[in-house]
Amino acid sequence: MIYHAPIKDIRFALNELADLPAICGLPGYGECSVELTDAVLEEAAKFAEGVLAPINKQGDQGAKWQDGEVTAAPGFKDAWQQYVESGWVGLRAPEAYGGQGMPALVAAAAEEMWCASNLAFSLAPLLTLGAVEAIHHHASDELKAIYLPMMSSGQWTGTMNLTEPQAGSDLAQVRSKAVPAADGSYRVSGQKIFITWGEHDMAENIVHLVLARLPDAPAGVKGISLFIVPKFLVNADGSLGARNDVRCVSLEHKLGIHGSPTAVMSFGDNDGAVGYLVGEPNKGLNYMFTMMNHARLGVGIEGMAVSERAYQKAVEYARERVQSRAVGSPDPAGVAIIQHPDVRRMLMTMRAQIEAQRALTFYAAAALDRAARHPVPDEAARNQALLNFLIPIVKGWNTEQANEITSLAVQVHGGMGFIEETGVAQYYRDARITAIYEGTTGIQALDLIGRKTAMEHGVTARALLGEAQSTVAKLQAAGFDSIARNLAAAVADAERCVAFILETFGSQPQLAAAGSVPFLKLMGIVLGGWQLGRAALIAKDKLQDADADRDFLNAKIVTARFFAEHLLPQVSGLAAAILHGADSVLELDQAQF
Amino acid sequence: MIYHAPIKDIRFALNELADLPAICGLPGYGECSVELTDAVLEEAAKFAEGVLAPINKQGDQGAKWQDGEVTAAPGFKDAWQQYVESGWVGLRAPEAYGGQGMPALVAAAAEEMWCASNLAFSLAPLLTLGAVEAIHHHASDELKAIYLPMMSSGQWTGTMNLTEPQAGSDLAQVRSKAVPAADGSYRVSGQKIFITWGEHDMAENIVHLVLARLPDAPAGVKGISLFIVPKFLVNADGSLGARNDVRCVSLEHKLGIHGSPTAVMSFGDNDGAVGYLVGEPNKGLNYMFTMMNHARLGVGIEGMAVSERAYQKAVEYARERVQSRAVGSPDPAGVAIIQHPDVRRMLMTMRAQIEAQRALTFYAAAALDRAARHPVPDEAARNQALLNFLIPIVKGWNTEQANEITSLAVQVHGGMGFIEETGVAQYYRDARITAIYEGTTGIQALDLIGRKTAMEHGVTARALLGEAQSTVAKLQAAGFDSIARNLAAAVADAERCVAFILETFGSQPQLAAAGSVPFLKLMGIVLGGWQLGRAALIAKDKLQDADADRDFLNAKIVTARFFAEHLLPQVSGLAAAILHGADSVLELDQAQF
Repeated sequence: MIYHAPIKDIRFALNELADLPAICGLPGYGECSVELTDAVLEEAAKFAEGVLAPINKQGDQGAKWQDGEVTAAPGFKDAWQQYVESGWVGLRAPEAYGGQGMPALVAAAAEEMWCASNLAFSLAPLLTLGAVEAIHHHASDELKAIYLPMMSSGQWTGTMNLTEPQAGSDLAQVRSKAVPAADGSYRVSGQKIFITWGEHDMAENIVHLVLARLPDAPAGVKGISLFIVPKFLVNADGSLGARNDVRCVSLEHKLGIHGSPTAVMSFGDNDGAVGYLVGEPNKGLNYMFTMMNHARLGVGIEGMAVSERAYQKAVEYARERVQSRAVGSPDPAGVAIIQHPDVRRMLMTMRAQIEAQRALTFYAAAALDRAARHPVPDEAARNQALLNFLIPIVKGWNTEQANEITSLAVQVHGGMGFIEETGVAQYYRDARITAIYEGTTGIQALDLIGRKTAMEHGVTARALLGEAQSTVAKLQAAGFDSIARNLAAAVADAERCVAFILETFGSQPQLAAAGSVPFLKLMGIVLGGWQLGRAALIAKDKLQDADADRDFLNAKIVTARFFAEHLLPQVSGLAAAILHGADSVLELDQAQF
Repeated sequence: MIYHAPIKDIRFALNELADLPAICGLPGYGECSVELTDAVLEEAAKFAEGVLAPINKQGDQGAKWQDGEVTAAPGFKDAWQQYVESGWVGLRAPEAYGGQGMPALVAAAAEEMWCASNLAFSLAPLLTLGAVEAIHHHASDELKAIYLPMMSSGQWTGTMNLTEPQAGSDLAQVRSKAVPAADGSYRVSGQKIFITWGEHDMAENIVHLVLARLPDAPAGVKGISLFIVPKFLVNADGSLGARNDVRCVSLEHKLGIHGSPTAVMSFGDNDGAVGYLVGEPNKGLNYMFTMMNHARLGVGIEGMAVSERAYQKAVEYARERVQSRAVGSPDPAGVAIIQHPDVRRMLMTMRAQIEAQRALTFYAAAALDRAARHPVPDEAARNQALLNFLIPIVKGWNTEQANEITSLAVQVHGGMGFIEETGVAQYYRDARITAIYEGTTGIQALDLIGRKTAMEHGVTARALLGEAQSTVAKLQAAGFDSIARNLAAAVADAERCVAFILETFGSQPQLAAAGSVPFLKLMGIVLGGWQLGRAALIAKDKLQDADADRDFLNAKIVTARFFAEHLLPQVSGLAAAILHGADSVLELDQAQF
């Protein structure tokens, strides 16, 4: 189960496509540079390959629950300690609280490696950073001082407690309660489910961020507040005090990511769990929204990363496995299956989509950095809109395709792919959650057509498609005919779909919603194809250099062409379904199902 | 985990689309009639719903191996006994040996229910019937008399021992040996892997069909012979004798179908396993080919059936789960998620493909019956060619889509879909093997473009597309404009792809092979869309009846329209990849991966 961090591909996407030098030049990223990033990535690669990848398979045995205590999967506690000691948790956490304050773009590259080497493990720092972000932006200075240094270092981990049995995507239904206590704190009670790393033995303390309702809070989403509920109370001197009234009732038995304990958490079974209000009352959902982009970007990275891991395994097997003569060859001797055209097609289908996803994901991460730091307010705002538009696509498209890509990796292995010892089935199982949590693809797609397209009158969608159209002209000039032709056709289809959404969303939102997921996938393919078109142009340019890495750069061009010839043509079918298929989605009565 | 056998849909596909009355009229199916079939299907539905479905989930706990003995999953042995007593094993086995000699078409409908209710269980009779077929067609009368009655009744089960560690799809690599003994029998030795139901405690005896090489047999596929190797030797009076020198070394740990023990079998560790040659020496692979169509049809049924089961579960959940307000509604109250357009889209995507697969699969089963029994030799031959062409499509397309359809069923469940207790994840895991065993999709697709298209100069492909084109005219006349338009465009694309394969296969087979799986999927969509177009026409006609089942028939029309508007448009993208994408599949050097 070897993992090779794809450093060259990552660097190409960072430096050439996402313009890392410009991101390092933003105010507040003073120490960041391409050279420093290179060094960080090399260390991250070593850690991912040497520490996290080797324990990924044993992680599949799962964490163990006993009497409310959870023991992490074998090797995980030790790996976490090394991860903390190496300072990886706080790579993008604020410097004021002990983090390293690196750009989201650099952190995204490192996160790809954590997720690819060990998806279940990577969720512990991901959730911790989400909690750090929420506390940093919204909690009082006092709470920040208590919690952020310990969490940025990873000595304490963080969780998000949103979901309840009756309230999955629909947080309006949240019922957990918080009652004010005399000392200014609150007593929190209620049950939360699907809490990632909700309980474990890797860190000294666990800081739960919990959505709950104050007494007399308004119904619905405007009556939800956010609380810090630590596993152990924190004394005035920062030392750990009494065990709080929160416990892990059970762990879920899941299809995948067994190494990540998914907890049912019970708050306040006795006296009420001591909690501290973050920010103002009834603003909990707003606070969640501010960290949502980063969290969803993170899950998009997960999808792309587990796909990369599965791709590497498939390539390795395809090189080694000898089976059947070459197509059209008179020689009956078997050849490595990587020589069989359909195995090639599967590998190229995986590879092309992963490279497109990496490019688009890093492009979105750069927008996140610019939105947060760009000194020109208009540019910051433009990038915020760009980020907002890209997030549901990166989250939804990367993860939907992760199901397909990891399935192809199983298929390349033939019968061996179905045997758990082979290891590729784990990636297939692990990947399956990514299109579900942090908002299903359906939720992402409604966000995309509504807030991100219709409500801003298609401005960002059309600006992006306009940029893709400019790239078409450059591709034509460079002689990349098939890429140019297929991208142009796909952009035209995408523009028709944007127009359809703008026309229907206000008056007949059901029609727009019926095609929302196809639209999300369509935009993923178009924007992914655009990014690979850019990559081909850059590769062609760099091939002029005397010391060019010719094999690498030529592969970028071939991969872009494959994407253009195999993925971009799918756009016309998606567009047809969006534009002409809404009625038949909705026509049956419920009773007819 | 309720399963409702979709009797009305099955009947519609049997009677209206696959012309069951005509099949019952073929020579040798004397007792078969629509009424008898109805009665059989009602009993099968009761058995599937009442006996097999309830033990499917506990089957996921798996069979247990200890010291070479295998204990079937809880409840399986008892269910097998009931299955045998009810006479289900021999439904399509020859009457001369105790079977009921029903048409393959009727058996296919029952098999859908076995596979949907309990995929792992259904493999035991499927493999047994495959062995019955091989013995019936190729073994001596003496061997038939000993084995067929016991196997047709299910008192003994059968297996297929083809695969060895170095020989998956490529049987030329088979190394197992068979040495003649003085008494006319053989001593078989070697190791076989992936042997479905290779060892278990459900039946008194297990009859292994084993591919092995005689001494001095030619190398490659022309030196493989087929042997019967029973677990227990059979005495002259038919009673069971000594344990044969064959044992189960271990069971595989698999992604799914845990209820079906997948054995590593070792033959001849001591004195050699006693085996009996089936037919002539060195003809083993030919004999396998004669039963391949039925076996692959069976796996196609598996894919469609597990999809149906997953669809039913998704519909049930979507009706019950209340979450979020209706799209565009001012009322904040949550609604059942079946009202959300994207959930509808997922359910329709599942439903439309399952109905198209059922229609195409039964259509192929009818061709199998006609090929075997039609009194006019030309008609029998035409149906044999039709069957040969359809088999890789039914096997490949149904099973590839089973991965997608069961994944959609998981997605409809949101976070609950990822929890094993919910049960839908089991369908997702179980389905994954169907596109792999009995020839991967890549193997099916090579067969489709080679032996089934290029080598017969596209005669059958074009005849089928011609029939679809005639249906287009009828659809236009009936006012089904969008079905007619989308089907016509898809047929035209398919014809271009057939021409491309005929042009390239001889001179540049790599180019044809690069698009072989896309071509298989394309043909599945086109022919599935054609079948649903036929269904819409028939439904429209039947709606004239005063006592018509209006909801059911209207749903057939809407489902056909959905397929035409959402699935058929995918054909243009597949055709583009086939016609213009082969070079980029093949261009990278191995070292560039």
